[in-house]
Amino acid sequence: MASTRIREARETDCGDILRMIRELAEYEKLSHQVKISEEALRADGFGENPFFHCLVAEIVPAPGELQGPSVVGFGLYYFIYSTWTGRNVYLEDIYVMPQYRGKGIGTKIIKKVAEIALHKGCSQFRLAVLDWNKKAIDLYKSLGAQDLTEAEGWRFFRFEQEAVKKLAG
Amino acid sequence: MASTRIREARETDCGDILRMIRELAEYEKLSHQVKISEEALRADGFGENPFFHCLVAEIVPAPGELQGPSVVGFGLYYFIYSTWTGRNVYLEDIYVMPQYRGKGIGTKIIKKVAEIALHKGCSQFRLAVLDWNKKAIDLYKSLGAQDLTEAEGWRFFRFEQEAVKKLAG
Repeated sequence: MASTRIREARETDCGDILRMIRELAEYEKLSHQVKISEEALRADGFGENPFFHCLVAEIVPAPGELQGPSVVGFGLYYFIYSTWTGRNVYLEDIYVMPQYRGKGIGTKIIKKVAEIALHKGCSQFRLAVLDWNKKAIDLYKSLGAQDLTEAEGWRFFRFEQEAVKKLAG
Repeated sequence: MASTRIREARETDCGDILRMIRELAEYEKLSHQVKISEEALRADGFGENPFFHCLVAEIVPAPGELQGPSVVGFGLYYFIYSTWTGRNVYLEDIYVMPQYRGKGIGTKIIKKVAEIALHKGCSQFRLAVLDWNKKAIDLYKSLGAQDLTEAEGWRFFRFEQEAVKKLAG
């Protein structure tokens, strides 16, 4: 029987990662905001001082099965810094293709990120979720995450490129 | 007359930065969450691969005034990664001491962060704010930021240390 493994992404996975970034943005109904290219992912994630790290979930066929391994999910994260607790991890994206959901692959990715966080001396990890994405919210809560927008009132703000340019003068 | 300048923080500013981190957390009514030490700030921000960068606002006395320069505000930021737009900046903390507010120091810090963002090839910058902090929200909006919790429904989630340990097994 085929099995799933979580492994560090390689540069050659960038095509699959970009495809899944687009699928996730479409699910989030925010596709129009996706401007990233495969080249940018390769350059920014796989150089000497990478801007991000990435895990992929891969289906490994059983011996004798004809097809090769296929990437069906990913978790893209980076290291951030809390002025209250120091080193932290931020999970920017987590995604599992629809036909592979309900098999615990998302949980496996989150557990791997937690392992990496501890290994790197991080005390916490953060992520963001859309308020209507009940399945994701239920999963994160069941794994022990706290909704800080609800508990403390934190809101996300962003300066878009136009605003940044104007501010920089 | 004294003037204000925004400059990169030095390791010797960590005492002032820690003091202001505590003042900000007290203002946010979340002081009990502050576990950071001056030693951690020095080690994590001023080594070879720093986890964060920091700007400080300094009052520079006019020639002939007796007191030396004093640090009255800070902005602590780091580089993150958007899977939609690539390199981004996150402004983790911005703070100006109460008696120095209303002089445009916060705006100066934000403008400097925008300059750095552009210089480093970042397209956007993000930050978080508490829903009752109307003064901060008004400032960010007046400078062109968008409230993404309102506009798109993004919520903050965090796995605390206990949850991370349990996940990592």
